[in-house]
Amino acid sequence: MIRPTHAVEAIPATTPFVGPEELMREADLRELVRLGANESPFGPSPKAIAAMTRELERLSWYGDPESLDLRDALAAKHRCHPQQILVGAGIDDVMGLAVRAFVAAGDPALATRGTYPTFAYHVVGCGGTLIELPYRNDGTPDCEALLSAARRHAPRVVYLANPDNPSGRFIPRDEIATFYEALPKDSLLLLDEAYADFVDESDLLPPIFEDRLIRLRTFSKAYGMAGARIGYALASARNAHTFQKIRLQSGINRNAQIGALASLDDEEFRQFVVSETARARDDYYRLARELGRGYIESRANFVCINIESCERATRVMNELLARGVWIRKPGAPPLDSYIRVSVGTAPMRQTFAAALRAVLAEVPA
Amino acid sequence: MIRPTHAVEAIPATTPFVGPEELMREADLRELVRLGANESPFGPSPKAIAAMTRELERLSWYGDPESLDLRDALAAKHRCHPQQILVGAGIDDVMGLAVRAFVAAGDPALATRGTYPTFAYHVVGCGGTLIELPYRNDGTPDCEALLSAARRHAPRVVYLANPDNPSGRFIPRDEIATFYEALPKDSLLLLDEAYADFVDESDLLPPIFEDRLIRLRTFSKAYGMAGARIGYALASARNAHTFQKIRLQSGINRNAQIGALASLDDEEFRQFVVSETARARDDYYRLARELGRGYIESRANFVCINIESCERATRVMNELLARGVWIRKPGAPPLDSYIRVSVGTAPMRQTFAAALRAVLAEVPA
Repeated sequence: MIRPTHAVEAIPATTPFVGPEELMREADLRELVRLGANESPFGPSPKAIAAMTRELERLSWYGDPESLDLRDALAAKHRCHPQQILVGAGIDDVMGLAVRAFVAAGDPALATRGTYPTFAYHVVGCGGTLIELPYRNDGTPDCEALLSAARRHAPRVVYLANPDNPSGRFIPRDEIATFYEALPKDSLLLLDEAYADFVDESDLLPPIFEDRLIRLRTFSKAYGMAGARIGYALASARNAHTFQKIRLQSGINRNAQIGALASLDDEEFRQFVVSETARARDDYYRLARELGRGYIESRANFVCINIESCERATRVMNELLARGVWIRKPGAPPLDSYIRVSVGTAPMRQTFAAALRAVLAEVPA
Repeated sequence: MIRPTHAVEAIPATTPFVGPEELMREADLRELVRLGANESPFGPSPKAIAAMTRELERLSWYGDPESLDLRDALAAKHRCHPQQILVGAGIDDVMGLAVRAFVAAGDPALATRGTYPTFAYHVVGCGGTLIELPYRNDGTPDCEALLSAARRHAPRVVYLANPDNPSGRFIPRDEIATFYEALPKDSLLLLDEAYADFVDESDLLPPIFEDRLIRLRTFSKAYGMAGARIGYALASARNAHTFQKIRLQSGINRNAQIGALASLDDEEFRQFVVSETARARDDYYRLARELGRGYIESRANFVCINIESCERATRVMNELLARGVWIRKPGAPPLDSYIRVSVGTAPMRQTFAAALRAVLAEVPA
């Protein structure tokens, strides 16, 4: 009889995210206001759409397996060598490579409980031992506790998202730099900067290309290309070379490469997205205050609003879905009493606000 | 100091394929007639292009992580349950999942030496022990020898491509069925049917969904969507469920799903591609005969032409590249004295024919 390897059999079947398409089928909904996955409501850059439209007829060609043009452009942007950039099919792909490359079965890996779940998914998938520490009470990853756990457990990889998802909290660059320097020298910091494009560059860590730091970036958020599946790592050339040994050699959609390249050439559009996103966050803050709710100030394209209890937050989320508004909620304390709503366009925000008002009036505290 | 896991450090750095973009850079070429990667010269279906064009502005949305609509359509096509279909980012992705799920470090896996190299790449990447047997002299995978090796080595996975790449040979359905039945019951047959869409359905194995058979299909070849990165496995629901535990949950480009779905709805276009491909193969056969060369009759969208020695075939390939015509050549005997040319449009074929005539006149035997 055919059985998977022991390691794979031991992996629990989990689905980190249920997609909106499945939710729509289950609830028999025809339309959904998508505010659950931090997808950009502003779409890809018009330049990217134009470039991809032109190239659709050549989608019968494989994309460049080395992403040469895109890596050149990214190297210019990040003031580094193209060999320090590894392009993958989204951050999840690159994160999987990083975990597979550095976490063997039984190896410890460290993260914040309730942060972006794909790191944990990959660690479990590799048979690694996941050590998770809670957020601080304000929803910030607890760097002090992470540091002390790193000294105790000598994890192979320490995961930190900054800005964090789902909290939206941002740890200032000096604190990140101090944290990075203080980590044990044989722990690798996997710094997930999926939302860094919403942050002023002067607030971010400067370019550092050392073996014990891998930074993850994506075109899914500010660049509005989540469906394209393209992201990259800023890494030492040595680490990028290691990933080269295990990555899918032609894994990236050709049009994703073309769209990403065109996006980089449309800084005006990114700036527009960033400022509209800030405006949207302000709207959500105002709404929360109006409803007498706490919220977390966010540096990303989503906001967490306090519903006071996990149970009520879950009910609010479900009631919103029944009204055709899709959001998500954090899964672990202290954030599990919050709902997380992604930035939408002004009409989407209005729909959300009206639905939330109605739902809060209905769902008992 | 940070080092990868022992397993990953032990993987030799190999690049199974050098992409045409890199070759163009190295040779300073601005244009290339792409006949090297069995990409369809007929592009995606016009229906697929129209559907993807319409949806580009929604590329800011993740694709459905479960590919629900596409799996429904594929289940209808293959007369099976959607749970027996696993969609991945191309066959390479799905093949990687199959190897990872069934081949642990040290486990044997069996294949034909010189066939499509990604299986070997994944086995090596998992620390598996690859056992390779040569083709028969006519370029057909040697089922008898594979069977006897399977009985001897009890491989976890046996890989067979049918039609085979790079030979183009096709093993009739009854022989495949006999081979499958005769394999040890704890060996899984990974049947790579990337080129099956060029073969009449009545010549293919009927639907079989057992734990020890995984069939791989793709939209990269007859459907002309290689750059989209979308393929799938026909598998038992149990195996599909196993892959679910280790796959990237949102790994597939949204537009790839949409284009694939529209492609399935354009059987007329696929028929056009299949008949044009047959015409193109006949052109290549004629050309080979005219040049006094042997060739292998192919059931796929490429043809191997005999150049008599590996060294001369390599020189011919390189000289063709210098003239802007990109082909590839098989790497292992007995096929390494051949060049492999992909089906092109009529003008591409003419360019290839003229270039090959000139090059053969120049490159000594």
